[in-house]
Amino acid sequence: MLKLHHYTLSSASRFARLALGEYRVGMALIDEKPWLRREEFLKLNPAGVLPVLIENDGPPVCGVGPIMEYLDETRGYAMGDRRLMPDHPYARAEMRRLCEWFFLKCEAEVTEFLVREKVMKRESGSGSPDTGIMRAARGNLKIHLTYVDHLLSERNWIAGDRLSYADLAAGAHISCLDYLDEMDWSAHPNTREWYARIKSRPCFRPILADKVLSLPPSKTYANLDF
Amino acid sequence: MLKLHHYTLSSASRFARLALGEYRVGMALIDEKPWLRREEFLKLNPAGVLPVLIENDGPPVCGVGPIMEYLDETRGYAMGDRRLMPDHPYARAEMRRLCEWFFLKCEAEVTEFLVREKVMKRESGSGSPDTGIMRAARGNLKIHLTYVDHLLSERNWIAGDRLSYADLAAGAHISCLDYLDEMDWSAHPNTREWYARIKSRPCFRPILADKVLSLPPSKTYANLDF
Repeated sequence: MLKLHHYTLSSASRFARLALGEYRVGMALIDEKPWLRREEFLKLNPAGVLPVLIENDGPPVCGVGPIMEYLDETRGYAMGDRRLMPDHPYARAEMRRLCEWFFLKCEAEVTEFLVREKVMKRESGSGSPDTGIMRAARGNLKIHLTYVDHLLSERNWIAGDRLSYADLAAGAHISCLDYLDEMDWSAHPNTREWYARIKSRPCFRPILADKVLSLPPSKTYANLDF
Repeated sequence: MLKLHHYTLSSASRFARLALGEYRVGMALIDEKPWLRREEFLKLNPAGVLPVLIENDGPPVCGVGPIMEYLDETRGYAMGDRRLMPDHPYARAEMRRLCEWFFLKCEAEVTEFLVREKVMKRESGSGSPDTGIMRAARGNLKIHLTYVDHLLSERNWIAGDRLSYADLAAGAHISCLDYLDEMDWSAHPNTREWYARIKSRPCFRPILADKVLSLPPSKTYANLDF
């Protein structure tokens, strides 16, 4: 039995949900509001970072990078063609580079800002959105999507010929940004075509049903034809 | 033949040098000044992040996390007892959690600030140090070192009974902070005892010979008895 401590609009949490979904592993979701810094949660992960995965009575697996590797080590080998990690060390390095692109760079330059300004501030009652920060994050988003479009002009999936963790990392971020109505699909046709493919996978269904109280999703968020 | 693009006081670069040193793998070092954003370097790693490792004529392995995993995949198995990655997935998750603690949290809250304010600004001619930022980073450093001292009150090494990548991650950061004369050893005796052990390992020798032009190292930086 797996328990996942997550937050609905945390892109790292969504990545873990998508990976578990692709591997068809059931999980119990435990909602964490990151801004509350709940004491019981900090005991599990002193860094206070989501997601945290617990398998049976085992120790917590803390953070999106360690969870990705843990799932490969405990499930990957058995998945055959559906393994989310490529076989060759070079291909794995390229996949990990792109995962870190989203986990660290896209998070720090785009997603974290927009989720905080548009949702977390409202949910935590800590002031109104800073339009300057949102403008900067939107400028950064254009650069990120241009890069994704460029990758997908040369590849079928984000890190190569096959679906991998890198697609789930990108999908986790883009799904949060799509929820917030921040995606300009017309300017990024390759990204749109790729997202239509990944969005229709069964692992995306629970994500597309997500709702946060303070803000409904964009109109086409849950549509497979957008 | 391995080439490593690095910067002397980049803690992530130091981690890669230490790991290669532990595995007794020779490397050619290529100096990068991160603030220059050199075009040829950005072609290797569009994220602009150090370190970048290139093996023979292979593709670049970009970033500290991917390099750590790549070295384990290509060298780890052959190292026997000297492997820097534990065997069990839970132990690996704990080691990766602590690596991320240093790679991400300690970097963002402490090391990055102090290296930038004390060294990079001088080397790049971009203004004088911000004392407010340095004070905040020093406050954060106390919390980090208290945590390291706590870990080492229960363990022989940072992530458990054996030397692992987590010790090199911690050592990479602490060596940068020690260079900058920011370590208050008297308040953190467990960290001091552990650092004396790791500092005397052969992999540390090149690090202890490091010098940046604009700032000499602290008096005891290279002393094994400090």
